[in-house]
Amino acid sequence: MFLRNCWYAGAWSHEVEGEALLARKILGERIVFYRKQSGGVAALTDRCSHRFAPLSLGRREGDCLRCMYHGLMFDAGGVCVEEPGRKVPSPRTDIRAYPVVERWKLVWIWMGDPARADPALIPPCPYIDSPEWACIPAYMHFKADYRLVMDNLLDFSHLSFVHANTLGGSNTIAEIRPKIDQLEGGVRITRWYLGEPELAPYLKGIERFRGPVDRWNIYEVALAGCVFEMDSGSAPAGTGAPDGRLAPEAMHFHSIQIVTPEDERNSHYFWMYAHNFDLQNAALTKMLSDRVEGGFVEDRTMIEAQQQVIAETGDSGMAYIHFDNAMSLYRRMLSKAIAQEQEQAAAG
Amino acid sequence: MFLRNCWYAGAWSHEVEGEALLARKILGERIVFYRKQSGGVAALTDRCSHRFAPLSLGRREGDCLRCMYHGLMFDAGGVCVEEPGRKVPSPRTDIRAYPVVERWKLVWIWMGDPARADPALIPPCPYIDSPEWACIPAYMHFKADYRLVMDNLLDFSHLSFVHANTLGGSNTIAEIRPKIDQLEGGVRITRWYLGEPELAPYLKGIERFRGPVDRWNIYEVALAGCVFEMDSGSAPAGTGAPDGRLAPEAMHFHSIQIVTPEDERNSHYFWMYAHNFDLQNAALTKMLSDRVEGGFVEDRTMIEAQQQVIAETGDSGMAYIHFDNAMSLYRRMLSKAIAQEQEQAAAG
Amino acid sequence: MFLRNCWYAGAWSHEVEGEALLARKILGERIVFYRKQSGGVAALTDRCSHRFAPLSLGRREGDCLRCMYHGLMFDAGGVCVEEPGRKVPSPRTDIRAYPVVERWKLVWIWMGDPARADPALIPPCPYIDSPEWACIPAYMHFKADYRLVMDNLLDFSHLSFVHANTLGGSNTIAEIRPKIDQLEGGVRITRWYLGEPELAPYLKGIERFRGPVDRWNIYEVALAGCVFEMDSGSAPAGTGAPDGRLAPEAMHFHSIQIVTPEDERNSHYFWMYAHNFDLQNAALTKMLSDRVEGGFVEDRTMIEAQQQVIAETGDSGMAYIHFDNAMSLYRRMLSKAIAQEQEQAAAG
Repeated sequence: MFLRNCWYAGAWSHEVEGEALLARKILGERIVFYRKQSGGVAALTDRCSHRFAPLSLGRREGDCLRCMYHGLMFDAGGVCVEEPGRKVPSPRTDIRAYPVVERWKLVWIWMGDPARADPALIPPCPYIDSPEWACIPAYMHFKADYRLVMDNLLDFSHLSFVHANTLGGSNTIAEIRPKIDQLEGGVRITRWYLGEPELAPYLKGIERFRGPVDRWNIYEVALAGCVFEMDSGSAPAGTGAPDGRLAPEAMHFHSIQIVTPEDERNSHYFWMYAHNFDLQNAALTKMLSDRVEGGFVEDRTMIEAQQQVIAETGDSGMAYIHFDNAMSLYRRMLSKAIAQEQEQAAAG
Repeated sequence: MFLRNCWYAGAWSHEVEGEALLARKILGERIVFYRKQSGGVAALTDRCSHRFAPLSLGRREGDCLRCMYHGLMFDAGGVCVEEPGRKVPSPRTDIRAYPVVERWKLVWIWMGDPARADPALIPPCPYIDSPEWACIPAYMHFKADYRLVMDNLLDFSHLSFVHANTLGGSNTIAEIRPKIDQLEGGVRITRWYLGEPELAPYLKGIERFRGPVDRWNIYEVALAGCVFEMDSGSAPAGTGAPDGRLAPEAMHFHSIQIVTPEDERNSHYFWMYAHNFDLQNAALTKMLSDRVEGGFVEDRTMIEAQQQVIAETGDSGMAYIHFDNAMSLYRRMLSKAIAQEQEQAAAG
Repeated sequence: MFLRNCWYAGAWSHEVEGEALLARKILGERIVFYRKQSGGVAALTDRCSHRFAPLSLGRREGDCLRCMYHGLMFDAGGVCVEEPGRKVPSPRTDIRAYPVVERWKLVWIWMGDPARADPALIPPCPYIDSPEWACIPAYMHFKADYRLVMDNLLDFSHLSFVHANTLGGSNTIAEIRPKIDQLEGGVRITRWYLGEPELAPYLKGIERFRGPVDRWNIYEVALAGCVFEMDSGSAPAGTGAPDGRLAPEAMHFHSIQIVTPEDERNSHYFWMYAHNFDLQNAALTKMLSDRVEGGFVEDRTMIEAQQQVIAETGDSGMAYIHFDNAMSLYRRMLSKAIAQEQEQAAAG
């Protein structure tokens, strides 16, 4: 059950350079990405129309991709432009091409009706390539239903437990009630932790100040493309952060986390964690990214274990608790959007 | 198809010490065992009521177990005693706790109706912790239906073939007809091999005498908990062992082998092999245990291969031969007991 | 869907020497091959009639095979000749024996009605053990439906792509239209490439001449046993090879490739590649075999990837192109032969 008429992050731009043929399954469909000689990225069904050999074992030729089993060649639009030994390719040899747009260092792919693939719908992720922010584009794979990964993002109470020694550090996170706003196409969550005794463990060694902290996580999670965009940070307590005044030594971050379903039980995870201070310090950028990745590995361990239990026992009968409101709202909105899309598709 | 209203061996006591959270599947159910700070062992469903994360990734706190995903905490009875950020936990957050009793260095768990969990029904295994016998508690895992493991135990003719160079050593074992007695809740098998030319291979290097041997295997196999308890030994031939007189140099053993179904196709195997001579000789105890384990590895190789064949081709059409009487009797009694239990459960 | 009433290559003779018990699945049936002490090879169901233990874990005794679980022994005809502790084996203990004939260094097995197992139907493979040809009997395993492997053999256009740097070397192969003849029980394919600029890459370092080449691949593919037998070679261009005159420096080969279905999705591949020049040069024979194997590894990579795609998406909707005529003809003939066989079997 996936939303189809939206842009999904299919790859980081740097994964599709030179002669690389990137095979990646998205919403259960095998896709091959490659960079055209003329620039830009193409995405084709990773299956030759002839005998179903994967095109990711093929060869890029100019802007085209040749199947290296029997030599059929396809252009970036999926049209079969060459069949060895024949002047004109045989009928019904064209394959599916997917609309693709490269933006924010990401390759976005449209998995639904191509006629509706409007680039204006690509989620804004300006902090990825802003010169005023520094980050490292990163990828992880989760052996879990994308909705379990989204659940995790929609309830930060887990920071007090899963990430007690990394991204969390305090029980306050689990005890606070976040503000939850329903948006047109997603959910906004606002969390403030005022007067925490110290910075979170993942900032140890890169502190810009000591002592009590006002900390925040303010983020939006979009239905379309499962995009999580967060403004977060820590400022010396009482210096006005909740009122929008940021002390010079405050540590301010923007993070993008995008969960692209691989199939019903596996997910791609594209993420970055950007800082806007000490911008030229590449070691800092790397250390911060490594620390955050350590936290995400903790998430993955828990979520994959949860997925295994659910695979065995089903997911009915889960208890609803007060933390679940954002997650529950998002799931309801998602199910409704998917149902609407399927009704529209059925109606023609 | 399992008998449920009985005590199964769930763990050795030493597997559940300190902070250990032992995840083990029994009769297809995921269970987590842990030792309470106040002593005694608890067994809970290894699945948080909230989002189905495994509690075996959790943290023991006193006598309780906390889920380390979102922090719900359960007492040893499965009651949710804490939900972060709420004074009283949400409804329907309790989980299943299993009756557990620790005896004979084993943790026994009751998988059926808790109201019927009478500790008096725990199988007697006094040789495990008797000061007059020495043994090493051991565990193996079999990728096989527990009934195939029981079959193996119920027909010792295999000692002449599977264990020709270890536990067996003579074709006599396969040629003798054991005495088989049907008991109330199981089967007793009596095997005497009189005047065998020498001790079995697994006793090489630890012989207490040389020359012809009167050897015996007398054991009971219970339906409840799949418990095998054996008196066995080797005495100098003609010194009266069959009449109950044990020569001082006789080698006398007691063995416990318990097969706890993990699921339909996997089994836990708890065992020990005790001797009552040379009690202070820990090297002897270890060598004997290692030798017996070598034999059990031979069994496992054969039984797992047999399981694979059956998984592919089914198990109908097996030929019945004269060895099969004990095994066949036990299987019939087991099927009948399971059917009765299921009828009772259906009747309410 | 397999043809059953035919001889399949089950093993190379050298795989069944001494005490070896070769377990191999053929047409989805588990079989154990062994060499009788009196010579000749036996093939039995690899499953004891008693408790379904695999006989390949057993022990050869003379011309018989003993199950090493409980000791039943079977002769080469599958008759149970010994049950320990009983004078006459119990009823219904016999197992299936398969007709087997050893010829051309191969062990041929008949998977259908034994009454029809006529050794005269064994495919002729004289080049395997001819003193005038040198080759190395070789085996590979393919994780693919045997028909996908046959497809590969029936369309050599793939040499220009899969084997561009090994067995192929020129786009001519893909551009030429082969001559295709329907035979009684298979297909003959004739391919001539006249005036190619140079020898194929796999012959680099073992050339017997330089300069332009007349090259050919003339082969028959039989339905029965999936046997591919090829006459191929390269001669100096214009020296009369197409007319049957072979220049002394021509490089002439015979190859056998036999695809025995392991099950619906796996195949055994028995092959050799023989040369008739420089016969005493074992290093040449080895180098040639290694080069060809390198090409077959390329095939395997492609075919196994193709199999994975088909396993996921099915195989309907493949485009038919002009290369496919031989493959398509063979598939039609095979389907028809299988259907006929099944009708006959159903009719009794």
